[in-house]
Amino acid sequence: TSPQRTPWLETGSNYAMSNGGGVVSSSTHLLDLLEEPIPGVGTYDDFHTIDWVREKCKDRERHRKINSKKKESAWEFTKSLYDAWSGWLVVTLTGLASGALAGVIDIAADWMNDLKEGVCLSAMWFNHEQCCWGSNETTFAERDKCPQWNSWAELILGQAEGPGSYIMNYFMYTFWALSFAFLAVCLVKVFAPYACGSGIPEIKTILSGFIIRGYLGKWTLMIKTITLVLAVASGLSLGKEGPLVHVACCCGNIFSYLFPKYSKNEAKKREVLSAASAAGVSVAFGAPIGGVLFSLEEVSYYFPLKTLWRSFFAALVAAFVLRSINPFGNSRLVLFYVEYHTPWYLFELVPFILLGVFGGLWGAFFIRANIAWCRRRKSTRFGKYPVLEVITVAAITAIVAFPNPYTRQNTSELIKELFTDCGPLESSQLCQYRSQMNGTRAYSDVSSQPSTPGVYSAMWQLCLALIFKIVMTIFTFGLKVPSGLFIPSMAIGAIAGRIVGIAVEQLAYYHHDWFLFKEWCEVGADCITPGLYAMVGAAACLGGVTRMTVSLVVIVFELTGGLEYIVPLMAAVMTSKWVGDAFGREGIYEAHIRLNGYPFLDAKEEFTHTTLAREVMRPRRSDPPLAVLTQDDLTVEELQTIISETSYNGFPVIVSKESQRLVGFALRRDITIAIENARRKQEGIMLNSRVYFTQHAPTLPADSPRPLKLRSILDMSPFTVTDHTPMEIVVDIFRKLGLRQCLVTHNGRLLGIITKKDILRHMAQMANQDPESIMFN
Amino acid sequence: TSPQRTPWLETGSNYAMSNGGGVVSSSTHLLDLLEEPIPGVGTYDDFHTIDWVREKCKDRERHRKINSKKKESAWEFTKSLYDAWSGWLVVTLTGLASGALAGVIDIAADWMNDLKEGVCLSAMWFNHEQCCWGSNETTFAERDKCPQWNSWAELILGQAEGPGSYIMNYFMYTFWALSFAFLAVCLVKVFAPYACGSGIPEIKTILSGFIIRGYLGKWTLMIKTITLVLAVASGLSLGKEGPLVHVACCCGNIFSYLFPKYSKNEAKKREVLSAASAAGVSVAFGAPIGGVLFSLEEVSYYFPLKTLWRSFFAALVAAFVLRSINPFGNSRLVLFYVEYHTPWYLFELVPFILLGVFGGLWGAFFIRANIAWCRRRKSTRFGKYPVLEVITVAAITAIVAFPNPYTRQNTSELIKELFTDCGPLESSQLCQYRSQMNGTRAYSDVSSQPSTPGVYSAMWQLCLALIFKIVMTIFTFGLKVPSGLFIPSMAIGAIAGRIVGIAVEQLAYYHHDWFLFKEWCEVGADCITPGLYAMVGAAACLGGVTRMTVSLVVIVFELTGGLEYIVPLMAAVMTSKWVGDAFGREGIYEAHIRLNGYPFLDAKEEFTHTTLAREVMRPRRSDPPLAVLTQDDLTVEELQTIISETSYNGFPVIVSKESQRLVGFALRRDITIAIENARRKQEGIMLNSRVYFTQHAPTLPADSPRPLKLRSILDMSPFTVTDHTPMEIVVDIFRKLGLRQCLVTHNGRLLGIITKKDILRHMAQMANQDPESIMFN
Repeated sequence: TSPQRTPWLETGSNYAMSNGGGVVSSSTHLLDLLEEPIPGVGTYDDFHTIDWVREKCKDRERHRKINSKKKESAWEFTKSLYDAWSGWLVVTLTGLASGALAGVIDIAADWMNDLKEGVCLSAMWFNHEQCCWGSNETTFAERDKCPQWNSWAELILGQAEGPGSYIMNYFMYTFWALSFAFLAVCLVKVFAPYACGSGIPEIKTILSGFIIRGYLGKWTLMIKTITLVLAVASGLSLGKEGPLVHVACCCGNIFSYLFPKYSKNEAKKREVLSAASAAGVSVAFGAPIGGVLFSLEEVSYYFPLKTLWRSFFAALVAAFVLRSINPFGNSRLVLFYVEYHTPWYLFELVPFILLGVFGGLWGAFFIRANIAWCRRRKSTRFGKYPVLEVITVAAITAIVAFPNPYTRQNTSELIKELFTDCGPLESSQLCQYRSQMNGTRAYSDVSSQPSTPGVYSAMWQLCLALIFKIVMTIFTFGLKVPSGLFIPSMAIGAIAGRIVGIAVEQLAYYHHDWFLFKEWCEVGADCITPGLYAMVGAAACLGGVTRMTVSLVVIVFELTGGLEYIVPLMAAVMTSKWVGDAFGREGIYEAHIRLNGYPFLDAKEEFTHTTLAREVMRPRRSDPPLAVLTQDDLTVEELQTIISETSYNGFPVIVSKESQRLVGFALRRDITIAIENARRKQEGIMLNSRVYFTQHAPTLPADSPRPLKLRSILDMSPFTVTDHTPMEIVVDIFRKLGLRQCLVTHNGRLLGIITKKDILRHMAQMANQDPESIMFN
Repeated sequence: TSPQRTPWLETGSNYAMSNGGGVVSSSTHLLDLLEEPIPGVGTYDDFHTIDWVREKCKDRERHRKINSKKKESAWEFTKSLYDAWSGWLVVTLTGLASGALAGVIDIAADWMNDLKEGVCLSAMWFNHEQCCWGSNETTFAERDKCPQWNSWAELILGQAEGPGSYIMNYFMYTFWALSFAFLAVCLVKVFAPYACGSGIPEIKTILSGFIIRGYLGKWTLMIKTITLVLAVASGLSLGKEGPLVHVACCCGNIFSYLFPKYSKNEAKKREVLSAASAAGVSVAFGAPIGGVLFSLEEVSYYFPLKTLWRSFFAALVAAFVLRSINPFGNSRLVLFYVEYHTPWYLFELVPFILLGVFGGLWGAFFIRANIAWCRRRKSTRFGKYPVLEVITVAAITAIVAFPNPYTRQNTSELIKELFTDCGPLESSQLCQYRSQMNGTRAYSDVSSQPSTPGVYSAMWQLCLALIFKIVMTIFTFGLKVPSGLFIPSMAIGAIAGRIVGIAVEQLAYYHHDWFLFKEWCEVGADCITPGLYAMVGAAACLGGVTRMTVSLVVIVFELTGGLEYIVPLMAAVMTSKWVGDAFGREGIYEAHIRLNGYPFLDAKEEFTHTTLAREVMRPRRSDPPLAVLTQDDLTVEELQTIISETSYNGFPVIVSKESQRLVGFALRRDITIAIENARRKQEGIMLNSRVYFTQHAPTLPADSPRPLKLRSILDMSPFTVTDHTPMEIVVDIFRKLGLRQCLVTHNGRLLGIITKKDILRHMAQMANQDPESIMFN
């Protein structure tokens, strides 16, 4: 065929004529597919990016194979059924396991947390609350005190009151806290270094298509579960909600090994992990819908509708398992169940928005301070002593926390207390201005009482607790123990919110004739709900740190179950996000991803620059030429030289150096495996064997050794863009299709290559950051 | 430059050398961007597909322009603020308008519906319920009867009882029903033909990137609002929920014209429409979260996270406006508020799953029957008389419906009654076996009464109502009036569910010593909730028809507000989807899209065939060669000849016929507009002027007329795939990037083109359907 003939006049089977003289037809293409696959081709190295398109093609291929065999025998039919149902099975198992583990963690953490204060003599395995349940001697008001429960001072010194016993309790509290923290950090350090932190940044990265072997393995799961209990019980300023997502993802990953559909396909495995992360949030907060939206909004990268449905299922299963374990002993699914009795008023939006501003400021401040501290840990000698660091932080936390009742208690319980509205039976110090004088009065009279010193001392203690939590959280998140950020952030917001709430309530009480309060706040009526302020503040602070929006509102909505309070929540969360975004658009998880240099292409951040593909592609002006393979005139030796002299992950294959027309793309790993395999299995392959990527072998001199055909590892449909393509489109293609690399052409000639890493480097450069911070491929 | 030199050795500014001798550099590229845009270029014809990538680039360009000007003056800064906030403004306005319209529709439909039965003499504008509110003479049990409300028989004949008055009421009922139906169909036919149907298939198509001018315009909005009220009041077997989504989308579209950011960009406009459809479902059911998930799962095509958040906001605003209008008079947001008092038992999953099977079968049957009927309407003479058809259906509906109390009443009220559990105060005939004998008894005794004939007659009436609804709904959906499918489907499911529920309840009553009931159903205890069965049945039937999953469960969850009943719902909805999918994977909306031949590329359906791009691309073997333009050797006349001789929407531009190297892609519409524009504005452009797409003009003979530069309309980054690319990948690219066309190359040479229509045709062919059913471009 002369080059003057227009190729589209040629019929289908002749298209490949210029390809080396061979003829490609549909049937030979099918033969290609049926060729024996080389073991190992199509797998990935550790710390490498997966190719979503290839993985999805592999899955469809597998599915077709199973479907075509289905009618052959009853056994094949059963196998196809098993395959079709394995998706549901794996999410069910994941949900069951996540729910069960969450229940175990809840119960164990509660027990160990109470161990710091004392022990139940009648039954060692009871926590404080359970210990006193059976006791008949306690009244409702003193339900926390019962003879079966002994503080350490009572046990050791034999006395419950007095400075001696206080010091004894103080000492035992610190002792247990330090022991737990020491044990936790040692277990993490020795057995599973990946078990530290919240795990969400890494899970986001993994879900975006990155391989971190062992991050979701059985060791990580085991050690994370144990150390999470220890870390929570040690009283450090951390929560168990983030790590629960990691635990659930470990379950998902481990169960996916039971099903070849998921274990052998990285893209499919990530669908299970998306569902698992929904289950994790579902059990963390008792909010299944919120969990699904969290997975959709915050964690997942590729979220098809099928996954949405399965995630929802996994989240529900996990929530129901947790509820039947009933770790909180109240048949409630949710972590903080609240019920408010009064509506909110339009004027209250002002303090709610102020709480939003506080949340945004706190979020921005926390992210900067925490990242600065973590960077210091990474870059200086200081990071070499993680055990010492954990023990120091735990010691400071325990010593400072003990004297203040709000910091001494479990953070979840603190949040619960702050969220709860003051009712007639409430014995909390926060409600002392109410409960002191009205043992028998009706509820509507409650807030007609002026405040007493009780609430002022509570306010002071809350302020101190706020400062303490703010400081300690910055130093705690990033320690080498499992540590979640949800609970400390919510606690900070809840404390701030409660303070604001009590202030507004006092204002309304003393100035109920102000024009603001006059219309809706009658004298003696219960018109302000400080618990609601605490909830709004908690949502705002959590929003400021994580920059979650819908999922956060839905999670908190599921706590109260009423649409009533969505507007305040939404106003606060929106304000918090806007204020936070003004100081920097990344949430804490993205910031940690960047700190660790993972190749994560954020779907949320828009690329707004006007650069073109040719400005980003390699080779740059000063670089050596692009390493390419020609389709039929290299020898095995030359090929090996090219591979050993470069470190690229793949090589474009072209027709010839002269024409620079692109044929396909071959991955380094696949070429190495294929040559290795050919040497072992095929006879006559020598160093001077010709390597060809075409359908038919090139015509060779008579004495040349047997040529090596590598067409089966050639990706004949590499993605290409022209050099004029704006980078915004290239970034979009990479994000939406999950590419690993893309070739750049100009008028049909190959010019260069753009990898995911090139894009991330370019984006870092455009944002005036160090492009070398992107570390992996 | 000799062709032997490898192009990647040349530096950036030389890449375009082979392009016609010109030099393209970054700065000239910027100049290109700053060139005066030709008015009209970049817009779309009616019934054409948009190019998402191009639209998004346009938006980013606009955004950059505004951002760069921002610091020039206070006015520009204000403009940039307005631009940044316009997204929130437009969704707020849409939410407000949707909520208000939904309230008006609810109130008007209620009033007109009651007008069929009688009129309120004291105040004409009151409906039956409002009319009797003020009356002191009525007891709670007879709250529906009051002297102010007069049936037509009372008014005209002066008597309320007897066969004469029954016939009079029958006649007036039919008369009003026919009048409303006639008025509705006439209004639709004369003023806004697009106002008919539910609108969801078309909205899905529009959101996937298709232009139907006027479908969301102000006339459609006005006529749809009015005729929706009339259609609902006429008693036809249809609901207002689907059309409310259309109404909300009209609001979104109309408000987007206030903001250039949205009015001038088809992709951005679709973000507003996604939010609007969430607001529509939110007001239809009072379920904001369900609305957002509906928009995400069922309607939207491109749903970035920003849209998620704004959709949620719009849905909330709409829900709150509706609640403050309070059309149901009970301060409830939700359409059917239910509260159940007893839990469900594991054994009950069997009837729930049976209801799921029924729902799936009904869905599959309905879709086939309705599509067959609609196809008949389209293809035979019969479809030419829409007014006659509507009147016939309305007459049959009214005549058959009146004698049966369950079909006579408003369908929403019927569903409400079926959902409600039998309490001590319930006067419904459905609860007669309970309420007859226990005027003063405690609630727990209620179900210890055996059933009386009351419930048997109710069962018969329900069975007849079920058959009636099933038959009428098939003929009603698709009439030329606004008609939603949610309410009739839910009614069918609720009737079936209630029947099953009562049957199970009777079984448990008479056989409470069976091993099944023995353990959990004590004698005299209220262990079965027939209302829950009705709810589960409604969800199953709706799921069978629409194939919604998560959003449906969440919508129904928001009705009850308790996680308690999610498992039954989920079991039924899942069963219904699986059973339905076994008979055909499309839901009713997809089936109607296919019936109408819209170019809709469903994101849910997987493409599983092994065809390659070259088998789908045009030109086929027998076709004439691909119509291409060369970059610098055509004259205006030749270009016009090519355009007029073909009907393609765009033409690839190549370097030369010999090399077949691809340069870019130019759209037919843009070329026509550009030539027209050049003739009017540029002097010296003649029929024999040379047209060039390169950066610099080609060297021409001295006497030739001034050449015409068309580079500004050339898309220099057309999407290309190789001929070996599997179609599954091509389909994926089209779906995810929202492409309109894609060029096919082989080793750098242009071979052909694949458009969205080609893909849809190919998919239809693969599914053994008529490929010619895809009608638009």
